[in-house]
Amino acid sequence: MSGGEVFLHEIYEQPAALRALLAAEAEVAEVGARIAERPRLVRLVAHGSSDNAASYAVYAFGLLAGWNAMRDSISLSIYYDAELPFEHALVVALSQSGRTPDVVEYVERARRRGALTVALTNDDDSPLAEAAELVVTVHAGRERAVAATKTYTNELATLALLAACAGDRLREVADGLGVVAGQAEDALPALERAVTPLATSFAFVGRMVVIGRGVEYATAREVALKLMETCRVAAEPLTATDLVHGPIAAVNPLFPVWAVASEDAALPAVQEAAARAAAAGATLIASGPVADRIADASFRLQLPAVPDPLLAPLLSIVPGQVFAWALAQAKGLDPDRSTHLTKVTLAR
Amino acid sequence: MSGGEVFLHEIYEQPAALRALLAAEAEVAEVGARIAERPRLVRLVAHGSSDNAASYAVYAFGLLAGWNAMRDSISLSIYYDAELPFEHALVVALSQSGRTPDVVEYVERARRRGALTVALTNDDDSPLAEAAELVVTVHAGRERAVAATKTYTNELATLALLAACAGDRLREVADGLGVVAGQAEDALPALERAVTPLATSFAFVGRMVVIGRGVEYATAREVALKLMETCRVAAEPLTATDLVHGPIAAVNPLFPVWAVASEDAALPAVQEAAARAAAAGATLIASGPVADRIADASFRLQLPAVPDPLLAPLLSIVPGQVFAWALAQAKGLDPDRSTHLTKVTLAR
Repeated sequence: MSGGEVFLHEIYEQPAALRALLAAEAEVAEVGARIAERPRLVRLVAHGSSDNAASYAVYAFGLLAGWNAMRDSISLSIYYDAELPFEHALVVALSQSGRTPDVVEYVERARRRGALTVALTNDDDSPLAEAAELVVTVHAGRERAVAATKTYTNELATLALLAACAGDRLREVADGLGVVAGQAEDALPALERAVTPLATSFAFVGRMVVIGRGVEYATAREVALKLMETCRVAAEPLTATDLVHGPIAAVNPLFPVWAVASEDAALPAVQEAAARAAAAGATLIASGPVADRIADASFRLQLPAVPDPLLAPLLSIVPGQVFAWALAQAKGLDPDRSTHLTKVTLAR
Repeated sequence: MSGGEVFLHEIYEQPAALRALLAAEAEVAEVGARIAERPRLVRLVAHGSSDNAASYAVYAFGLLAGWNAMRDSISLSIYYDAELPFEHALVVALSQSGRTPDVVEYVERARRRGALTVALTNDDDSPLAEAAELVVTVHAGRERAVAATKTYTNELATLALLAACAGDRLREVADGLGVVAGQAEDALPALERAVTPLATSFAFVGRMVVIGRGVEYATAREVALKLMETCRVAAEPLTATDLVHGPIAAVNPLFPVWAVASEDAALPAVQEAAARAAAAGATLIASGPVADRIADASFRLQLPAVPDPLLAPLLSIVPGQVFAWALAQAKGLDPDRSTHLTKVTLAR
């Protein structure tokens, strides 16, 4: 073995982590009731994987609750002290450790300015939990690998549950998440087998583009981040449409394109961008519940159909995680011992 | 010569393009007066370079007008038909050609739903200009190179002027832009000389991270996009803080980090991230008005101090453009003949 056992173990722990969160549904619902009054704007703040979860939250709040939500600029408030209207805002601050300094500082300021602040964290005894008015624990259990996996998927699930409370669809979403937990559990062994030959083919790849659209843009960002953190691959996440607006000029057989494909209204945009990438000579990987609908893919990591397209990102990220684990092995890197990186980042 | 004359020519045309826009200040002010009533939310929609300009707009509207502004999800509206509140919203849609289909469709829907819509384009006889209630022309003149340069800087300037109207600071901002035009003109010949040896050193680099923070995050995104489009470099734009939250694990001497450094309150975050990148063994390039304050940089592309830190991105992008031109030459690529890319992208 060349390392990565902790990372792989935590990838496999995701279904159990999801069920632990669902068992605490009442805790989420309690906070859900407190935020139910329609805010004018949901302001999401986070870094890294948590910021990728925030990308998902824009869709969860938009589609389940009809709320405007945005990934907010932290700099505008904490560095530039901009005079922005924070009344009628709901701040959702995400940090697995609850110790990201600028996120904590943002929450302190937003709360003073009249926003309703919610901390979404894996550590309810953290400075972020202390700073916010309301706290939702993601119940992922202790995560030891530096690259986040189960905390990411539990952040997605927690956000879906919160948005479902706001949109009065908690039962349906919680049940859907239970189904997805079982699907992830069933899919994992086959994915682990499927990624090994793929990783061997990609052992010398150093550049990649990962595309998604709509709810799956979060997945594209998170797949790219895993590949960067664990495999030293410069993986650029782009919306399918942004790929064809410029970066398509760069792709070729040694600059592959990974397309995340889910069954929803944004799929045609992904199919069209993937077709253009293939025409440009890019090696194409397709993953997701409709990976089989990406024409010309050289490799496919297929997933089952999810109960609701909005929940697809919880499952769609798993092939990316398992591939990152396998590619790190193929490259002789140890994802459990990432250089220059610690689990909790205290940097500005 | 190995091509790129058109690209370089348009880089040099930027000061003149900026002055052409400033000569049309009254046109911008007219639209500025129409949008002056405080909107609850500015929704920015765009792709590619125009989306990078939208990153800047979040700061311009936030700092000059005290308005909440966000880069909106186009998918939520046009693919998922989300029921979002569009009343009291100001939509600013950016497209150099005015022909980006999903941006046009978004504007049509937003207008029907009660938003005040503004098209910001280089072509006032385009479908986008037709679709929006108000039109602001960026006056960049015809752009022939596939990679945007003068249309990008004129978009930044137009956004700064619009936000200045809203914040009643038009005179000050317009005067500052006039100064910046002269500074860009003065800086260009020295930058062209400085990038040639740098490009030779980077001829075999295929991966890069570009960091900025706050107003300069837009510059980091745009530098990265130029390198991707014209040089096949997988350049990942990150906020300084996001670099140390994961991707720092990837950097090494063949995975350089470019830091955009301006004199403002976000500078310490950039300095800290750059120091960590250097400690991790990354080759470090620093550019901007305070490039000299990035310790351990192997290469520096220095610029003069700008009249207002908010206007720095108009100047800070120029070293990235000139470097992309020189690196394309060093790599034997022709930025005037990008493969698989057309000037106007009609894809979904």
